[in-house]
Amino acid sequence: MPLKLYYAPGACSFVPHSMLELAGATFEPVPIKLHKGEQYGDDYKALNPRSQVPVLVAGGEVLTQIVAIVSYIDAAFPEAHFIPHQPLARARFYEALAWMNNTVHPAFTHIFMPHKFSDNEAAQAEMKRFGVASYRHLLAELQTMVRRTRAAGSDWLGGVHPGPLDAYALTLLRWGSIAGINPEDYPELWAQVQRTAQVPGMARAIERERLQLNLYRPAAD
Amino acid sequence: MPLKLYYAPGACSFVPHSMLELAGATFEPVPIKLHKGEQYGDDYKALNPRSQVPVLVAGGEVLTQIVAIVSYIDAAFPEAHFIPHQPLARARFYEALAWMNNTVHPAFTHIFMPHKFSDNEAAQAEMKRFGVASYRHLLAELQTMVRRTRAAGSDWLGGVHPGPLDAYALTLLRWGSIAGINPEDYPELWAQVQRTAQVPGMARAIERERLQLNLYRPAAD
Ligand SMILES: N[C@@H](CCC(=O)N[C@@H](CS)C(=O)NCC(=O)O)C(=O)O
Ligand SMILES: N[C@@H](CCC(=O)N[C@@H](CS)C(=O)NCC(=O)O)C(=O)O
Repeated sequence: MPLKLYYAPGACSFVPHSMLELAGATFEPVPIKLHKGEQYGDDYKALNPRSQVPVLVAGGEVLTQIVAIVSYIDAAFPEAHFIPHQPLARARFYEALAWMNNTVHPAFTHIFMPHKFSDNEAAQAEMKRFGVASYRHLLAELQTMVRRTRAAGSDWLGGVHPGPLDAYALTLLRWGSIAGINPEDYPELWAQVQRTAQVPGMARAIERERLQLNLYRPAAD
Repeated sequence: MPLKLYYAPGACSFVPHSMLELAGATFEPVPIKLHKGEQYGDDYKALNPRSQVPVLVAGGEVLTQIVAIVSYIDAAFPEAHFIPHQPLARARFYEALAWMNNTVHPAFTHIFMPHKFSDNEAAQAEMKRFGVASYRHLLAELQTMVRRTRAAGSDWLGGVHPGPLDAYALTLLRWGSIAGINPEDYPELWAQVQRTAQVPGMARAIERERLQLNLYRPAAD
């Protein structure tokens, strides 16, 4: 079945992008330049009227939403063991994925795209300021998740195999570095993210997206 | 396996609450009074440090996040057919669930709990104003989803059986009515929600939560 992934370098589409590389899938990667507004062009809106990446096209079916695409790629590549099978372990996987997707990810949107939540400039600035403080708390919570995973003897957030939770954690910490948060403030999370980036499939996706993991620049006094 | 559901009347916890009723499950419903701040008490924070409902306790395991709880209840009650099995249909189910959970639900949070995104009163008022307009667009999108489902010959958003997508749609339209949006502005969605409320399992959850479906009051001139 032919697979096509619409992604943007550095965006949340890194999650399915790295899964396809980890699974050794044959797929056509289609980069979308979000900073040039390509997602608002007629062609892209015909594909996804919500003007967002990621989009996975699988045998002509257009699929959106990270959670859905993750579930689909997992089923298509069972030998990659992305999602555990046992019901409780499976639910724990979705618990972490959903939280990253409905809480941490939108918290960054408030910093990076506050115009999605208000057209008033002063309100946008307030949301951004508040958002950075919230984001720091959420990264601390993510670090606790990493600590517990390692303490329980697992190398990766989803258990035995590196996968979408690790890729999402990498993306979220990298976004923090864009928002002026030093990844070194979260040493265990930062170490985990660096370990994640070494996994060959992850490294291939990082290479294609030309990602630097840490974009933090200390403010000059 | 003993099941305990922590829920709040009218909150998003209606989704798992109605699933348990639809499945005919034996469970202990534990109401949490959000308006009295019970979610911030020490007991509840020991259960869920994020101070949110729903929480499902299944055989001593504490599970949070609607997406995860839905996946768990589905696996525990396969005869209720909540989530389709075929990979693409399964992904489509998660596509709709994730969108309700990461986009429509948080849009309402901006209206109902803007203090989660800014501590500045003027910014909160701006977010609320902008949020109502966004929410109207999202309800229109939800109505389109209902229309396509019915046009494809399905009675329910998840396919053949009433389930979590229908319960979420009911909750989201009901929230709109609290935010001053008339459900009758979305006649097909409103009809679907009224149909949903008639399903015996849904009706039992509605009864326990003492929900009115439509809280819209036209502004007096
Ligand atoms: N709920 C969506 C969110 C996707 C999303 O936020 N995509 C962002 C990039 S990380 C995007 O495409 N933004 C472009 C825009 O909004 O203009 C999902 O889970 O897939
Ligand atoms: N991401 C969570 C969101 C849960 C949520 O938003 N719960 C709300 C009720 S709808 C809540 O408990 N709010 C209480 C509070 O924030 O004080 C999920 O999907 O379960």
